[in-house]
Amino acid sequence: MQKKAFTLSELANYIGGIIEGDPECKIISIASLEKAQEGQISFLAGTRYQLVSSSRYEKFLPTTKASAVILAPEMISNCHVNKIIVGDPYQGYLQLATLFETKQAFKAGIDPSAKIGEGCQIASSASIGPNCVLGKHCVIGENTHLMANDILMDNVSVGNHTIIYPHVTIYQDVLVGDRVQVHAGAVLGADGFGLVRGAQGWQKIPQLGSVKIGNDVEIGANTTIDRGAIDDTVIENGVKLDDQIMVGHGVVIGENTVVAGCVGIGGSTKIGKNCMIGGATGINDNIVITDGVIFTGMSQVTKSISSPGVYSSGTSIQPQKAWHKSIARLHNLDEMIKKIRKLEKEYNE
Amino acid sequence: MQKKAFTLSELANYIGGIIEGDPECKIISIASLEKAQEGQISFLAGTRYQLVSSSRYEKFLPTTKASAVILAPEMISNCHVNKIIVGDPYQGYLQLATLFETKQAFKAGIDPSAKIGEGCQIASSASIGPNCVLGKHCVIGENTHLMANDILMDNVSVGNHTIIYPHVTIYQDVLVGDRVQVHAGAVLGADGFGLVRGAQGWQKIPQLGSVKIGNDVEIGANTTIDRGAIDDTVIENGVKLDDQIMVGHGVVIGENTVVAGCVGIGGSTKIGKNCMIGGATGINDNIVITDGVIFTGMSQVTKSISSPGVYSSGTSIQPQKAWHKSIARLHNLDEMIKKIRKLEKEYNE
Amino acid sequence: MQKKAFTLSELANYIGGIIEGDPECKIISIASLEKAQEGQISFLAGTRYQLVSSSRYEKFLPTTKASAVILAPEMISNCHVNKIIVGDPYQGYLQLATLFETKQAFKAGIDPSAKIGEGCQIASSASIGPNCVLGKHCVIGENTHLMANDILMDNVSVGNHTIIYPHVTIYQDVLVGDRVQVHAGAVLGADGFGLVRGAQGWQKIPQLGSVKIGNDVEIGANTTIDRGAIDDTVIENGVKLDDQIMVGHGVVIGENTVVAGCVGIGGSTKIGKNCMIGGATGINDNIVITDGVIFTGMSQVTKSISSPGVYSSGTSIQPQKAWHKSIARLHNLDEMIKKIRKLEKEYNE
Repeated sequence: MQKKAFTLSELANYIGGIIEGDPECKIISIASLEKAQEGQISFLAGTRYQLVSSSRYEKFLPTTKASAVILAPEMISNCHVNKIIVGDPYQGYLQLATLFETKQAFKAGIDPSAKIGEGCQIASSASIGPNCVLGKHCVIGENTHLMANDILMDNVSVGNHTIIYPHVTIYQDVLVGDRVQVHAGAVLGADGFGLVRGAQGWQKIPQLGSVKIGNDVEIGANTTIDRGAIDDTVIENGVKLDDQIMVGHGVVIGENTVVAGCVGIGGSTKIGKNCMIGGATGINDNIVITDGVIFTGMSQVTKSISSPGVYSSGTSIQPQKAWHKSIARLHNLDEMIKKIRKLEKEYNE
Repeated sequence: MQKKAFTLSELANYIGGIIEGDPECKIISIASLEKAQEGQISFLAGTRYQLVSSSRYEKFLPTTKASAVILAPEMISNCHVNKIIVGDPYQGYLQLATLFETKQAFKAGIDPSAKIGEGCQIASSASIGPNCVLGKHCVIGENTHLMANDILMDNVSVGNHTIIYPHVTIYQDVLVGDRVQVHAGAVLGADGFGLVRGAQGWQKIPQLGSVKIGNDVEIGANTTIDRGAIDDTVIENGVKLDDQIMVGHGVVIGENTVVAGCVGIGGSTKIGKNCMIGGATGINDNIVITDGVIFTGMSQVTKSISSPGVYSSGTSIQPQKAWHKSIARLHNLDEMIKKIRKLEKEYNE
Repeated sequence: MQKKAFTLSELANYIGGIIEGDPECKIISIASLEKAQEGQISFLAGTRYQLVSSSRYEKFLPTTKASAVILAPEMISNCHVNKIIVGDPYQGYLQLATLFETKQAFKAGIDPSAKIGEGCQIASSASIGPNCVLGKHCVIGENTHLMANDILMDNVSVGNHTIIYPHVTIYQDVLVGDRVQVHAGAVLGADGFGLVRGAQGWQKIPQLGSVKIGNDVEIGANTTIDRGAIDDTVIENGVKLDDQIMVGHGVVIGENTVVAGCVGIGGSTKIGKNCMIGGATGINDNIVITDGVIFTGMSQVTKSISSPGVYSSGTSIQPQKAWHKSIARLHNLDEMIKKIRKLEKEYNE
């Protein structure tokens, strides 16, 4: 496949940096300092970005095989290849990443193998890929793309500039906003887990609500968002969900909250705006998490939280033998502390 | 879309309640006290239902915009809209929910795009949706519906009145009972994780068992149930599984047990009848859980359990700094307690 | 369906064992001592295999309904049915399991409903099942099978003797090796969860890397492996991944490492060779795990590990009331221990 190629001087102009080295050097892609080869540009982020552990990569700077490196002025002495010097190398990388990105090309129109239910409204700039099946009265907006093998049941509405990757299932009445990306295997609007115990075992509670996905939302691969039992499940604008997340019925996730992979959120729980939920966190049903809360990975959230801040749980690992001892002690801790208190009392008397 | 509409007097008759207000008031759907608008009926459950936190909704009663509310006699003074008064408002809601539910309509028959293997027996009242692919010798019962893009390998048997939502994969020889619902993306009968270490790395153990799903089972979206290595994996009658659950090879789940989302169950484990497994619980392989056991969310179940009851684990969250201290102490707890015991011994002497 | 049938003497010859009983006894399949019926052979593994809890099955030996049992010489006195006596009964079972296994038969060729993009190279012995959709320039090797409803985007390359089960999605540029099995619903190469906070909420970082899957890898149902942000995500030769696993962007998993179900691995983390990761373990992003590390189930791995060994975490379950007390004590442990130290100091003075 033809890759894009740029000269170093073109790239330096694009990100507003100063070249040290050969301005005609050809660059075809980006790689890390560790893995980069000839024709690739790399970067050293500096220490201001929490999301990128630049200290881990700094050791590869003296020996990198990259054709060029984007870095801050204070790092140039350790770099023996072509350089683009900028104040914020990570921002420079982000700009180049957008430049090198290959956007999937979509051709407007409906694939002959797709099946479109009666009363559907499909924008002329939209594309409906092979083997997609749309129920009745679905609405698909401008420049929206259903890639392949997607299933939309009746009355599903999808906004503009949205991408639905393959094997996505969207149940009846679900609304999806503009500029949304739904990755492969995601399921939006399946029945919530609503049950009451009756005389003949568990009885299913009809799930009458739906799911509303706002604008600029991203939904990861194989993530599931259940429909509400009564009110809708709501994913507000700007929310980003990673893979393998389970969102229970009637949950509300506030604007610009990000949720990492494997998180489970119990039914009817409300999560505020601008929260960050670490991977594999479990959040009880029927609780309220205020705005600006951060949970680190594998947090066990059993109660509502009304103060913003960083919260954690879990025991983190120990060598197995030591762990067995710690847990045995933990399970007897209440008794032990009562004993100590008694001893303390005796001693004080 | 045309929605069903009822008068308040029709609804009151249906659930056996007494009207206070306008019996001709038109109701088109159900909503919560918080979200209800004109034309909607709401309810206040009373305090007897653990599964519904009615206290959370009671504060919305005085200001609700619902056209009518179902409630118990003792609550009417705070309600300024039309009422249906009943002894058990939650039961009233459940009855109305069933009334307002829109059941998916299925048209019997096989979609022309479906591919049916040789020797299949498909009941005349069954429907096989677009792009479904059935292997050889599959059996599909009366009033059973495969919605779209479902894959059944050879010798799969599905009972009567069962719904298979889209993108479900059922591997060879799997049996599914009557009145079962399998939600989108579920995978039944994939190979269990059976490996032995050989001279050339890990060797796969053939997975010769299958999966048997009983009657009245519900299986959530993207849940996976692996086939048995030797004996079958068995999901007994009335079991309800939420989304994103992983059931290992050879597991048995007893009648009427309910399992919330994101639970993982290790191979060959047996879970009794009438258990309730909280979300994101992890259950070891090769253990036995007796009947009537309840695990709260994120429980770590490492050993067999022979007494019914409620079990929990996890540390639940703390502010991150406090958590760091707690865990540091926990990791040294054994040593600390040995020291205290020594001190205690000295003191007693 | 026609099942394979063997005489006991054929099976004894096949695994090199000695018969006690009827050599003409017909055997059609394998089952456990507990569940076996007439026509089935069972086995008692002996105590040397950790992966199989034979002690659990030993009690079924005297009453088994199996037509024959494979066992070690020291166990024969408790067995009253036909026997095959071998030194290593578990190995005997493994050999027979391979004998009784029914391999899915594939017919080379491209199903007429499959859609093949321009420039694809498909080996003549490969099969492409119904409703598969391949993008441009994909390469499919000899004896490789795409079962049904699989989606491969542009430039995907799959090696020889590989099986792609139904409903698998493989994003652009992903490489899959030889003798790989990808189970239903798996997603390879979806975008990693790369975000930076900008003025207008979270901004997506282009995910420029891809995914490379080595040879002899198995990938479980509904497992997701994200593409790298910069460098590729790499699954090395001989790695075995169970169901519902989430592998973040840029992760490297070393040769012959096995990962049980529901594990989540954060972005850019490197896991060594020959590791064993227990089910539902959560592993932080940007850390390094050395070779030969074992995590037991539900481990919370927050830091890099440089020594091989067995590591654990979690509190394991207690009855709920006791657990509440333990956790309350744990949350106050730091304060309590400071108090004790003060007391100790006073006492020593």
